[in-house]
Amino acid sequence: MSAVAANVQDSIVLFGDSITQGSFEPGFTGFGQRLAHIYARRLDVLNRGLSGYNTEWAVPVLKECLVTGPDCSLSPKIRLITIWFGANDACIKSSPQHVSLGKFIYNLNHMVTLVRSSGSSDYSVETRIVLITPPPVNTYQRAADLASRDPPKACDRDFEVTREYAAAVKTVAEQKKVAVVDVWTALYEAAGEDERTLSKFLVDGLHLNEAGYQIVYDELMKTIQKEYPDVYYENLPFTFPP
Amino acid sequence: MSAVAANVQDSIVLFGDSITQGSFEPGFTGFGQRLAHIYARRLDVLNRGLSGYNTEWAVPVLKECLVTGPDCSLSPKIRLITIWFGANDACIKSSPQHVSLGKFIYNLNHMVTLVRSSGSSDYSVETRIVLITPPPVNTYQRAADLASRDPPKACDRDFEVTREYAAAVKTVAEQKKVAVVDVWTALYEAAGEDERTLSKFLVDGLHLNEAGYQIVYDELMKTIQKEYPDVYYENLPFTFPP
Repeated sequence: MSAVAANVQDSIVLFGDSITQGSFEPGFTGFGQRLAHIYARRLDVLNRGLSGYNTEWAVPVLKECLVTGPDCSLSPKIRLITIWFGANDACIKSSPQHVSLGKFIYNLNHMVTLVRSSGSSDYSVETRIVLITPPPVNTYQRAADLASRDPPKACDRDFEVTREYAAAVKTVAEQKKVAVVDVWTALYEAAGEDERTLSKFLVDGLHLNEAGYQIVYDELMKTIQKEYPDVYYENLPFTFPP
Repeated sequence: MSAVAANVQDSIVLFGDSITQGSFEPGFTGFGQRLAHIYARRLDVLNRGLSGYNTEWAVPVLKECLVTGPDCSLSPKIRLITIWFGANDACIKSSPQHVSLGKFIYNLNHMVTLVRSSGSSDYSVETRIVLITPPPVNTYQRAADLASRDPPKACDRDFEVTREYAAAVKTVAEQKKVAVVDVWTALYEAAGEDERTLSKFLVDGLHLNEAGYQIVYDELMKTIQKEYPDVYYENLPFTFPP
């Protein structure tokens, strides 16, 4: 017989691709780990990162991850959701992961609408949505990584294309009036606007290392504190008393 | 309006004191972080660590964390629960955290019974229970840490007393026929059975550092693979396809 986890506290959902899925990776400190720690005894952090996914494949998953209707009261409310895609959508056109810019924008809009229209109208508390821009690609590092594989692969990302997808995320956020964490710009500026220097923040030209995730976490917490103070960790009570 | 997190995958519950709560702490890799990573897209890891708690205070919380009855189908099943107490129960008698050895054994038994009797009999899948023994205390390190505080405090733990509480956890596990991870013995042996050498695994004589948590994780995964292979991560399908 299975015990069942009661809905004792609300949740934060981290929705995205491998950069989200890998945010608890051992050996360094990712942004998922930091959130799980700082929100301990306040909100559960649910990792809904899907390595390899683009927005096209992720939309049906998001539908499955959200409940609608009267049964909602037994499941944890999502107080905050981060939606972080673009790194795979921005693959070169010949890649199966590629999603056109227009379709990417459509899918992101659709995700925001899905979150806003799900749940039950019984809840007065709003789910806070944060869009995150994909990190800049260091194509030198990425090309070297792919060339070293067996068999070697050609580079599958382009610096300027990912920049366009990042800009599109910001536009969607403005239009939908949700907060955005512009990881692309934060990392690029931290790298002195030099693509090669991005290796300070990237493991393989695409995925983040601890220093990269630290910037993501810091920017996210600043954004939450400013835009959504109701879900800033210090403003949430402990579920069980200290 | 709040979006609500659907019950897309079952869960692992980490129930314990500060040594559980701190298992996602940034700056090093704790066992909570490792589990969250290895079980990503298979089981959610819910941190129910309660800093400062002993078993007496934790029993009512465990009741709140478990659901019983027909409504269970909407909430995540607990496939595995770790129950890790003793570090605070074993405080010296003058401490408000102290719980007598007899009461500690009673409470642990009660926790196992609560998990086994909760949920709904509709579920054929059993919740796997792992008891964990408290780590050995390095009283030299602990005393120095407490003496350095403002105001200074006297040492509140005893090496031999914690050993007795650890032994009691093993006895309860045998009697209740649940798996046990004997962290006390694993760490003491790794320290060459020398109390002072335990500083290799402890931050402050009481709480674990990365090397300490690594042993906990390794022992836990060995135990799961051997005793409960149905919840060993490699034997669980991905919730969403790769």
